[in-house]
Parts: sequence; C-alpha cells; structure tokens
Amino acid sequence: MPHTETDLHEELISSTRLFEGKVISLRRDEVKLPNGKTGTREVVEHPGAVAVVPLTTDGKVILVRQFRHPVQQVMLEVPAGKLDPGEKPEACALRELKEETGYVAGRIRKLTSMYTTPGFSNEIIHIFLAEGLIESDKDPDEDEFINSESYTLDQIAEMVATGEICDAKSLVALYLAGIQLHD
Amino acid sequence: MPHTETDLHEELISSTRLFEGKVISLRRDEVKLPNGKTGTREVVEHPGAVAVVPLTTDGKVILVRQFRHPVQQVMLEVPAGKLDPGEKPEACALRELKEETGYVAGRIRKLTSMYTTPGFSNEIIHIFLAEGLIESDKDPDEDEFINSESYTLDQIAEMVATGEICDAKSLVALYLAGIQLHD
Repeated sequence: MPHTETDLHEELISSTRLFEGKVISLRRDEVKLPNGKTGTREVVEHPGAVAVVPLTTDGKVILVRQFRHPVQQVMLEVPAGKLDPGEKPEACALRELKEETGYVAGRIRKLTSMYTTPGFSNEIIHIFLAEGLIESDKDPDEDEFINSESYTLDQIAEMVATGEICDAKSLVALYLAGIQLHD
Repeated sequence: MPHTETDLHEELISSTRLFEGKVISLRRDEVKLPNGKTGTREVVEHPGAVAVVPLTTDGKVILVRQFRHPVQQVMLEVPAGKLDPGEKPEACALRELKEETGYVAGRIRKLTSMYTTPGFSNEIIHIFLAEGLIESDKDPDEDEFINSESYTLDQIAEMVATGEICDAKSLVALYLAGIQLHD
C-alpha cells in the first residue's frame, strides 16, 4: 500500500553545524523517519543561483568556458552564478550575464526553477532566457577566469549530443530555450 | 583576448579534509589561479549516481515520490541512487530501479552522463532508459520511504510544465527520454 504524502515526511530532531564556507555550508541533521526510527541527513547549504541562456539577435547562444576545480575539467556552460544576499533572481541573472559575457540584456524572462541535487543540497537554480543583447564590458569576479563564446543552435545541439556540454543547469536551460525557440 | 584552454587551469596547492559523511565528504583546496594568485575551492565529494527513466510497455513512466529533507518537500522524481563502491552504473541503475519501484528491466541503455553541480561538487549522474519492465517486489533501503507511481507522457509533460517535477536529473532524463520516444 503506498504511503500518503504525510506518511513520507521526516521530522527534524536536531541539527549540527559542521562547516561555514565561502560558497557552501554543511550541517548534519538527525531526523525522525516515517517508521519512528531516527536517521541522519547531510545537508549542503547553498544560497541559490541563476543560469541564463543569452540569445543574440542573429540566433546564437553565448556560452562560457571555465575550469571547474571539483571535476578537474574545463567546461562549457551557460552563464550562471550565485545569488548575493537579498538579491532577486532576475537581477542576479542580468548581473552574472554582464560579468561573465559582457552582454546587457534588453529582455529577460524566467524559464523555470529547479533543484540541482535535492538528495544532499538545498541549491535551487532559477533559469532565464535573455534576449535583445547589447555588447558591453565584461566584469568577472577577481577569482573567475572565463571565456565567453557564441554558438549556433545546431552547434549547441551537437555539443549536447557529444557530451561537450554536460552539466545539469546548461542541459535543462538549453532544452527549455530550444523548446521555446522552436515554437 | 580570450584565455586559451591551458590559461584557464587551476593548480592544486594543498587540500584540507573537513568532513567524511555517509553520503558526501567535504574538503577545502587551495589552488593557484591562472593569474598566479591563490584561491580556495570548497569541494563536496560524492560517489556518483544513476537515474533511470522506466518506460512500461503501455507507454507510461514510473516515478518515485519521497520526502527530500534538504529542500523540505515531498518530490516526484525519476528513480535514482548512489553508486556502491566499485559498482558499474548500469548495474546500479537496475538495482535502484528494483529497490525503488519493484520493476525488473528487460533492456536498459544509457542516455547520457552529466555533472549536477560542477561549481562545488564532483557528483556525476549516469542516466538510463529502462524498457521491457516486469513487475516484481520492491526492496527499498531501510531509511528510504518511497512511493512509486506511473504516469503517461502527457501527464509528465504537464507536471514538468507546472513545476511539480523540478529536480535537475529528472528534467534531463525525461527530456532525453522524450526526445528518443518521439523519434
């Protein structure tokens, strides 16, 4: 017999803070499981982030290339970044787009929000489509080393198929933009 | 002028282990940035995972509903789980499918592999399509409380559109299965 929605809930018993970092924090929670037993849950706290699909007037998408230390690879992704405290996702999207690519967007609209890894983190990413782009100056964070590059939709489809573009937010963002673009 | 691929690399200087958990571990690395300065990188280590789109002979997809403590929500997702030490992704996909839904797959094939959050974690998820399903017994882990439910592709498209399905691996997995199914 399936559990009801209420049956699935876990109740917090206690929480231990383990690490406060620059990007993430970590805590370990003790929870009461639906069967009354106790379990532990490790939670990576993240401030939330945005990702942007920047679409140029000539039908290209701007991507960014950067070294990702956790996976020891140079990766090609949609522009993205963490929310500053109190910052609205749309404002963050416009800021990160400008910082990482130099483009200012004339129009921006949200495509979706998603959890990246709800099993161990609360990170949510808000995904936007940016259009009406005007080129300006890049303004990367001082510890960010980023190339911005533009690709046609066909090139992007090819790079998704070959696995050259292979991070979750970029895949979801590009699929959603593709669906909208091909309406 | 864009950086070359080599220019983007960061070199490890030192690594400090901060936490060894049941699901994840955490370390903080000091790196030499492309400009010669030093920076810190927080890295959540994860063993890797699989996700499966289980497609029934009558064209439905089996999803699982469970409470996700980090986001404090009951979520509807494709079946998924962590790799055991030394376990091959395909074997893991078949095991997790059986444990979480009770289905044994006659055929399974990989759709893609992706990084969930390359900015702060090395987690990789291997995504599979499972077909030729035969119903058997569920065998969840003792601290997992999971419902399995079947939906038509139209229902799934609707739940993606409304945001009821909203985690990265499910979105990518369902998009990829959808693309393949509609060939």
